[in-house]
Amino acid sequence: MNKVNESMLIDFYEFTMANGYFESGFKDTIVYFDLFFRSIPNQGGYAVMAGLESVIHYIDSLSFSEADIDYLRKRQLFSEAFLKYLANFSFKGDVYAVKEGTVIFPNEPILTVRATAIEAQLLETYLLLAFNHQSLIATKASRIKFAAKDRLIIEMGARRAHGVSSANYGARAAYIGGADLTSNTYADTHLQIPASGTMAHSWVQLFDTELEAFRAYARTYPENSTFLLDTYDTLKSGLPNAIQVIKEALLPQGVQSFAVRIDSGDLTYLAKKIRSELDAAGLHQCKIIASNALDEYLIKALIDQGAPIDVFGVGERLITAKSDPVFGGVYKLVATEKDGEIKPKIKLSDNPNKLTTPHFKKLYRIYDPSGHACADLITLHDEVIDTTQPLTLFDPDHTWRRTTYVDYTLRALLEPIYQKGKRVYQLPDVKSVKAYCQSELETLWDEMRRFEFPHQYYVDLSKPLWEVKMKLIENHRKNKTETAL
Amino acid sequence: MNKVNESMLIDFYEFTMANGYFESGFKDTIVYFDLFFRSIPNQGGYAVMAGLESVIHYIDSLSFSEADIDYLRKRQLFSEAFLKYLANFSFKGDVYAVKEGTVIFPNEPILTVRATAIEAQLLETYLLLAFNHQSLIATKASRIKFAAKDRLIIEMGARRAHGVSSANYGARAAYIGGADLTSNTYADTHLQIPASGTMAHSWVQLFDTELEAFRAYARTYPENSTFLLDTYDTLKSGLPNAIQVIKEALLPQGVQSFAVRIDSGDLTYLAKKIRSELDAAGLHQCKIIASNALDEYLIKALIDQGAPIDVFGVGERLITAKSDPVFGGVYKLVATEKDGEIKPKIKLSDNPNKLTTPHFKKLYRIYDPSGHACADLITLHDEVIDTTQPLTLFDPDHTWRRTTYVDYTLRALLEPIYQKGKRVYQLPDVKSVKAYCQSELETLWDEMRRFEFPHQYYVDLSKPLWEVKMKLIENHRKNKTETAL
Repeated sequence: MNKVNESMLIDFYEFTMANGYFESGFKDTIVYFDLFFRSIPNQGGYAVMAGLESVIHYIDSLSFSEADIDYLRKRQLFSEAFLKYLANFSFKGDVYAVKEGTVIFPNEPILTVRATAIEAQLLETYLLLAFNHQSLIATKASRIKFAAKDRLIIEMGARRAHGVSSANYGARAAYIGGADLTSNTYADTHLQIPASGTMAHSWVQLFDTELEAFRAYARTYPENSTFLLDTYDTLKSGLPNAIQVIKEALLPQGVQSFAVRIDSGDLTYLAKKIRSELDAAGLHQCKIIASNALDEYLIKALIDQGAPIDVFGVGERLITAKSDPVFGGVYKLVATEKDGEIKPKIKLSDNPNKLTTPHFKKLYRIYDPSGHACADLITLHDEVIDTTQPLTLFDPDHTWRRTTYVDYTLRALLEPIYQKGKRVYQLPDVKSVKAYCQSELETLWDEMRRFEFPHQYYVDLSKPLWEVKMKLIENHRKNKTETAL
Repeated sequence: MNKVNESMLIDFYEFTMANGYFESGFKDTIVYFDLFFRSIPNQGGYAVMAGLESVIHYIDSLSFSEADIDYLRKRQLFSEAFLKYLANFSFKGDVYAVKEGTVIFPNEPILTVRATAIEAQLLETYLLLAFNHQSLIATKASRIKFAAKDRLIIEMGARRAHGVSSANYGARAAYIGGADLTSNTYADTHLQIPASGTMAHSWVQLFDTELEAFRAYARTYPENSTFLLDTYDTLKSGLPNAIQVIKEALLPQGVQSFAVRIDSGDLTYLAKKIRSELDAAGLHQCKIIASNALDEYLIKALIDQGAPIDVFGVGERLITAKSDPVFGGVYKLVATEKDGEIKPKIKLSDNPNKLTTPHFKKLYRIYDPSGHACADLITLHDEVIDTTQPLTLFDPDHTWRRTTYVDYTLRALLEPIYQKGKRVYQLPDVKSVKAYCQSELETLWDEMRRFEFPHQYYVDLSKPLWEVKMKLIENHRKNKTETAL
């Protein structure tokens, strides 16, 4: 496969800052950046991590061509020494990340970079882009699959996607989160997501009659026939023609696997009418596929009304995450390091929710004896937790709120991905990522998966980490006699 | 530039249908497909066409590799003859399209393909994908620029984009529609969209104090300094430090071009306070740049409140078109052709708005003597309009509503792009596309650009076309004694 050189997909200010670090004596300064997000799309109760594979491909190939350097030189902002540095660039830092398919929560480090300030800065745009896009779609797909219960989901949004990568990596993220199939053939040939598809309205229109069109399809694909019913009239024309062709062409050959698809009209009403007519014709095995502006809310409503739909084709509202199309991941400096000593850094803000949690950290998930996730705990990187003792957490905003876990297990979530520029993480195949994601979702109580006012999961700071944060805020307060904070 | 082979970005059903046409005697059948859309995002009054350049690149390179053919063979659905046909595939049809940057309206043909059924079908997914994505963003950007009046717009959404192409082609579409600059360097190096950028919070955090950070920036980029004020405290820390550095480091060098940026808090309140303190310090020339979840609605509100903001940085809400992230373009069979005779085709539906307009057509725009667009007229491909005579249009839904134009000019909007597979259209550079788009937007009355209940533009059918459509509906009605239509 040819690869586009995506190295220059970097916000221009990363270059101005990188050159500035270079010129201001910070060329070799080691920094720590955290990637995290502040809120969950659709006010959901959890999110699903995706995008790590793309990030790894990006870091592995990140380098600057002669044309890239020439472009930067022409901007007349960068020193020749810096351009020479860029010409020889390859990433030499450390990366820790939560695996793809992991359930994640706001304000915890999903990915941490330890590298020189220049290296860490140059990664920012792509890391956020990949994480934000793919986690958005994986999260959305997990909600859609939850609404559909055990019914099949076909992702079919390519034509409404936000460009090529939105279609391709959106199909992959949707598969990880809950979709079973995609319409997009590229996602199958290049990303191993199983693709499927049968006919569009144009097939039906091209023949002189709908009956001829269905007959021709059954002749060509006896084992793979799904008849699209709504080109002319779903109940008066599409359905009787489909039943006739199934009876005259498929059943006599012993074929028992076929379906009808509806793509307009009221899906509950039509599915019920269709189911009863199929059953009356003895075609209990005929599946009903529905599509048309579906998402988790409409699927839940259709199922609540008893719509006998077996398969949902989900298009634009999944591939664009229409109900809330932004995943707000950010990437913030949390520490610098000099002579092996880590110096935590904080960013305050006029918006209190934009306050960062400083320092190089670890992230743990606490499970109860039933295997359900109870809370996440963020600690300093070198804290040791004695799991033979009860564990008491406190709410970082309302510190008087405390919970003590006695019978619990602890799991560290951040895995080493790169060490000194060398990749130490083996990429799993996407089928394993999907299975892992499924097991992750099963650790959540249903209360957390509800669409309206889901249970809010706790993400707490250890006492030592909380104290570091408070001290940094206090320092800034002392430096300014009047602060808005 | 390396190119990813995007040929397989095709919905799988295009392949099953194509093989089915091949096997059902439609291999050489000539068809006409129209690309059009049914409604404008955000209930706006117009949309902006974008995506044609991507479509042309796709068609020019559309071919199937050995690996693609092998993949299809393994699916065990396709005949060897068809696979051989695909292995030698290149597009040999005709394409007509409205140019990028043109103002467009619902239910009119934006692009028409005349080709064999197989060729036309294989183009569907990518054509829609490119058109839907890029027109969505170009339209959104035109609204944002309208809200900002003559102020500069910087598109800076790469990190929240839906993948790589969403960032890159989103930046291009935003530029066409109204953005002046982008943050995304790739969009500059590969797509000729001017990129810019200065500093992030991490720059400020890395130095021991904000003052040192600003001094270092001014030292490195005296001609390109924008100070980000809200790392610690916008008014108490960021602003006084910026003023100090401008006075001690920039003014003495004779630099008169600098800015401050705010990225949190209440932007109207902060901009007013900042403007008054800058002015009190004699820094009238210092620009104020604002960012943070901006879109056309918030920008309009800020300007209505008199916020003295000079430049708007627009991120996630432009690059994802957050308020309405789906552009609903569709691609429908409108005619077949046999022995030079065109046979119009229609698609009915259980949703009346999904009815198509049949036949090979032409699209005209009618201008009044002031140069404003009054209405669009769709005709049969071979109709002749006598522009020396008054032109009477009627509303296709309410046929008693009529308008007569006496003093008008007519412009045909669909241009030939491919003829018999040969490209006959020369791609303009993106700067010309942007300028053309600007001239297009100037043909609209402000009433059509209003965000709330804009004036609805007329798109009418000629009488001969309307009669063809009615006749086809009638034919289908006769074939079904009871029809829902």
